[in-house]
Order: sequence, then structure tokens, then C-alpha cells
Amino acid sequence: MRVLILGGDGYLGFPTALHFKKKGHEVMAVDSYVKRAQEKTVGVRPLVELPLMHDRAKGLLDHTWVCDISDSPTLDITSNLDLILQDFQPDTIVHYAEQCSAPYSMMGRQKALQTQRDNVLGTLNLMFAVQAHCPDAHIIKLGTMGEYGTPNIPIEEGWLDVEHGGRKDRVLYPKRPGSIYHLSKVHDSANLEFGTRVWDLRVTDLNQGVVYGVGDSGDDPTSFHYDHIFGTVLNRFVVQAVIGLPLTVYGRGRQTRGFLNIKDTLACVYLAAQHPAEPGEFRVFNQFTQQYSVMALAKMVTNYVGGPGLQHIDNPRVEMEEHFYEAKHTGLEQLGLVPTLLGEAELLKMAAYVERYANQVDRETILPTEETKWRKK
Amino acid sequence: MRVLILGGDGYLGFPTALHFKKKGHEVMAVDSYVKRAQEKTVGVRPLVELPLMHDRAKGLLDHTWVCDISDSPTLDITSNLDLILQDFQPDTIVHYAEQCSAPYSMMGRQKALQTQRDNVLGTLNLMFAVQAHCPDAHIIKLGTMGEYGTPNIPIEEGWLDVEHGGRKDRVLYPKRPGSIYHLSKVHDSANLEFGTRVWDLRVTDLNQGVVYGVGDSGDDPTSFHYDHIFGTVLNRFVVQAVIGLPLTVYGRGRQTRGFLNIKDTLACVYLAAQHPAEPGEFRVFNQFTQQYSVMALAKMVTNYVGGPGLQHIDNPRVEMEEHFYEAKHTGLEQLGLVPTLLGEAELLKMAAYVERYANQVDRETILPTEETKWRKK
Repeated sequence: MRVLILGGDGYLGFPTALHFKKKGHEVMAVDSYVKRAQEKTVGVRPLVELPLMHDRAKGLLDHTWVCDISDSPTLDITSNLDLILQDFQPDTIVHYAEQCSAPYSMMGRQKALQTQRDNVLGTLNLMFAVQAHCPDAHIIKLGTMGEYGTPNIPIEEGWLDVEHGGRKDRVLYPKRPGSIYHLSKVHDSANLEFGTRVWDLRVTDLNQGVVYGVGDSGDDPTSFHYDHIFGTVLNRFVVQAVIGLPLTVYGRGRQTRGFLNIKDTLACVYLAAQHPAEPGEFRVFNQFTQQYSVMALAKMVTNYVGGPGLQHIDNPRVEMEEHFYEAKHTGLEQLGLVPTLLGEAELLKMAAYVERYANQVDRETILPTEETKWRKK
Repeated sequence: MRVLILGGDGYLGFPTALHFKKKGHEVMAVDSYVKRAQEKTVGVRPLVELPLMHDRAKGLLDHTWVCDISDSPTLDITSNLDLILQDFQPDTIVHYAEQCSAPYSMMGRQKALQTQRDNVLGTLNLMFAVQAHCPDAHIIKLGTMGEYGTPNIPIEEGWLDVEHGGRKDRVLYPKRPGSIYHLSKVHDSANLEFGTRVWDLRVTDLNQGVVYGVGDSGDDPTSFHYDHIFGTVLNRFVVQAVIGLPLTVYGRGRQTRGFLNIKDTLACVYLAAQHPAEPGEFRVFNQFTQQYSVMALAKMVTNYVGGPGLQHIDNPRVEMEEHFYEAKHTGLEQLGLVPTLLGEAELLKMAAYVERYANQVDRETILPTEETKWRKK
């Protein structure tokens, strides 16, 4: 396969590119580096600052290209994305190239608009570019379980069979996203479903849970965030435990979400690529392996990694803190996913990685601020 | 009431502004004139070319302001929209300021991106500006019945009570929009619903059917389009009948939609304004009065207006040409709407208006072109 990874500099993008390469495929990684600029703007950095993608990729990946996929061509200029697709003719396009943080999207008007601009228009631009240059390519789009919110009914994989007024239909699963970022992903999904219906695009939408972990290569891990903006909750808890801070639980901590190990992200994307959606198919998988409440995670980290225990703080988000949650995730397992389950071994591996760089942790960036509250005072 | 009309230069915006003014309210109309530029780009014009809004408004409206609501403020510059809200402090904001044509949005990548950029980011910018300057203002947003598509179950007003897995929830009605334009309206609705949930915005979303008619003031009507890009189907049929062309029915013509007279648009928006949504409420009304198939409309026009009859042509759109359709529209009638029903009188009034300007009709812009097909060759 020729595999194009959009967002190849990221926590998931770079390891995904390596994963496809190790499996023997020809890989091109693309990134705009806009996230690195955003990190500087909001004053956070990953635990280990990594070289730029195109330097890291030397000797490891086949091709790299620095471009912003949301820059669409004007009437007489072809965009970089068009040149890439024309030239590389990918079979599979893995699309991670989006602003990836809910708190970032809630930090005020400019960041909200930027999030929806980059994500929605970037994906729309990609749909047109694929149509123009490689209409048979399989687009694997990373979405999030957060698109669904926490409905009082079981969450299905993207579609819902409904009966209403004595009649039946199969509809896109109704969503109730919890941030401007999550909304942007919902908009993407709707646009992509339209693209399958009208232009016969082939699309797999992966609604991913919260990712944790450092991957296989403890020596060359990926962009690992623990801060309140780009850090995911379990990664943050492990950092807090290792450096001796209480694990800060937002609100009551009964919020329940789907989680998965970063290794399973790679496995899932790979499985989706090996079994592409058909032309005209909008296929949705819920990409997570286990569901946990935030409290359960905090207790597990305290048990296995140690630290001073947990501390409840005001929830910066607007979300239900106690709710029904039952989300299907059978599609990827049917394709062959063998879940990596969370337990002592994984937590100790994460803790060992964090310990190695513990002196680099910026403690000032862990707790939410007034700026990242969903409702400002 | 202080009423702000966004999109005040348009087919519906200008008459709405006049309507509120006649009822004794203080009215400011805002427009970017971008639609006039778009008309020139694609080579179409309304039947009667009207003076610019700020000229037409002299002596009729209290205030006008030319600005693009999708231009958001940068860090140190306040946008015009912010100045307007700060200064005018509207009670009611009627938001028509969107790219309004499905065919336009399907004319290629630039117009698709422009549509979603202007509509989605414009509305998002408005949400932030309202929060900042007049958080209690009631936003009345024009959506479209086309957001729903043609599901095989009855269409409710914005929300759906679902039972699934033995449990119940009330969810946003699942939508299946049929164009990039319709998708932009779906995204708007999702963003606005979030705004009510998290920031207590007051929002009424009016999912409007296909509007027809010339309004009360036959002498000073509004921007009346009959072309294949901005013209609505019944207005186009009347023009075709008057100038002796066959009424061109897309495909089989069994497509069924909700319709309403432009007078009822004004009445509905006014009713919504008089009965505002509560803080935190996302209220949805389906704003149409009668449902018709395209064939039924064509036959009615032929009966009452005359002309050489109808002609089926290839459908430029991708849509079901025979389908179930049953859409609720009780909310506005409960608020007091008395529908203006379609019949001979209204059709003859429209025909009389068209006859007066029949020599100005541009016959070259009536039929769909390769460029406005949903699927290009």
C-alpha cells in the first residue's frame, strides 16, 4: 500500500507512520507544524521535545511534506495537498491533521474559530482533492467518542436503527458533542458521509476513545502531553503520580469514557486500512477497548504507580459527572483487534518513561486555568 | 424591541426588516453584499436589480451597517459585528446572513469551502459576539427543511424522542442533508445547540421550507431569483410559464418538500421574536405551511398561469425522486401563525409581477449546467 499520514508529527501520527512502514508499506507523512506553534502560544510543551517530523523521519519513512491541508487552491494555483495526491497516489489516507484539543478550542473566540476552520475546511478540502486526484483512495478519518456525548441510550457504531411513527430508518447516530473541538469532528463526519453518498468516496470514521501510553519504542516515544490543554487524562495522572502531585479529578470523577492504549490505535488504523471501506461506504468504528470512570483510573494509578492520591477540583468543563454510558466497540474486534488491556504492566511502563524525564515536567501547565474553563466568569 | 437583521439585503432579509419596522420596532439591517458579488461571479441576477440595502433603507429603517459577520476580531482589533452589538444592544437577532444556495455550494471546491467558511464561522463568530456583548439577546437563526433530507420516518421539529436498548433519550433529530450548503446549516444548528447548553444562549432555529412569492409590496419587491442557482422552484416555474418556456422538472418530480409564502416567512420570524426562546433553550420550528411534490407544483402553475406545460430533465442533484415525506410543522401555528395557502390568487399575483419585468428575464440562466451538477462528469 501507499499510505499517506496527515498529521504525521503528532502523538499518534508519527507512530502510525512508523507502524505502516515496519509492515512494509510505502509511507508519506505530512504535517503543517501548526500544533507546535499552538503549543508555544499557550505555553505548554510535550514531556520530551522531539525534532521536527521531517528530521525524525530520515531513514525511517519514505517521504515527508510540510503543508497545511486546509489551504485550498485558488483559481490558478494548485495547493500542496493537490500536488501530494497527484504525485503520491495513495491507496490509504490516514487523516489525523486536526486541532486535537477540546480545552484549546474553548480558550476563546479565535481558538474556537481556528479549530473549526482548520478541521472542517481541512477535511472538506481533502474530500475535494481526493475526488480530483485519487477518487478510489480510502480515507481513514480520526474522530472521537466525544462526538456522541453521554446519551441516555447505548452508543452504537456511527449509525442507529430507529423506529418512529410506525416506520423505520437507519440514521447517523445523533450526537451531543461537548466542545467546539468535538463539534468540529461531528461536522467532519457529516461532510464525509455526504461525500460517500454523493461522490462514492470510501471513508472509515474512527471514533476514538481517550488514548494513553508511550508505545513500544520507549527510547523514541512520541509527543507525550500531560498538560491541561493537550494532555489526556491517564497520561496526566501518571505524570502527577510520578512527580508526587495529587491526581486532580475534575468534579465528581464519575465521568465515564472509552480508553485505549496507543498501541491499539496503531493496530486499529492498520486493520481499517487492510479492510478498506467500499466506494460509497461511510463506515464507522468506535475505537476503544475499555471504559472507565475518571475515579477508577485515578485509583488504579494510585495503586500501581503510587503518589499522594487524588484530589477533586472544580470541573473546568461543562459535562455530566454521573451518567449512563454503554458504547459498542465490536467492529474493530471483528476485524481482528486483540485489545491491550490496561493494568499494572502498562502503568509501570508509562511511569518508567515519565521518571526518566521527570525533571523536565512543567508543573505550571498541569492544572486548568480560568482561560480553559468552558464557562468564563 | 431592538431588532438586528443580519443579511438585510436579501430576498427575505429586507422584507423582514421592513415588517418589524412597520410593527413599530427599532430595526438595524446588516449585510456584507457578498451575495451580490457571488451573483456576478456566476453570471446571474434577480429579476429586478435593486439598489443596495443601505440606499433602499433610507427613510424606511433606523440603521444599516455594511459588514461581514464572519470576519472575527483579531487580538487587538474589534470587528464590526462586535461594534454593532455593543452599540445597538439588540433584543432580537434575525440571522439570514448566510450563503443561501445549494447549487452554488456544489459548483466546486472554492464555492463549497466558501459556503462552509462563511456560514459556519459566521454563525460561530456571532455566538461569541453575543456572549460578549448582549448575552440575553434572542438569536433567530434561519435553517432549512433540507437539513433533514428525506428520512423514512416522520420529521419532527428539531428533536426526536428515541427508545433504544430499553432506554430513552431526547436527541437532536438525525439529519441527512443533501448538499454542502445544507450541511453548513446542520453544522450551524449543532454549534448553536451547544451554545444554548454551555453558555445559556437563547436560540430559535427555523427550519424553513422553500419560499415563494413576491410579498405584499408588488411595487418594491425583494430580490426575486428564478435562475438555477439562487431561484427557488416555484418562483422559477412562474417565470418559465410567463415567458412561454416549459417548466423544467428535475428527474421524476416526485420529490416532496415543504413550501411557504414569503409573507408567512415574515409572520413566522415575527412570532418567534414575540415569543423568545428561554436562556439555555434551543428551540426548533419547522417553518413551512404546505407540502407539495415538484410535479404537483408544476401542474398547478400550468393550470393557473398557463404556458406550454412541463418537461422532465436530468436531475442535476443527487436526491431521492420518490420517497416518504411527512414533516411536522405545528410549533409556529401554535404561536398563532395563520398560513397563507397556495392557490390561484397567489400564483396570478406572482405572474403579474413577473410579466411586468418579463423582458428582463435572462433565459440563459434558467437551466442547470454541468457546473451545478452534484456529480460532475
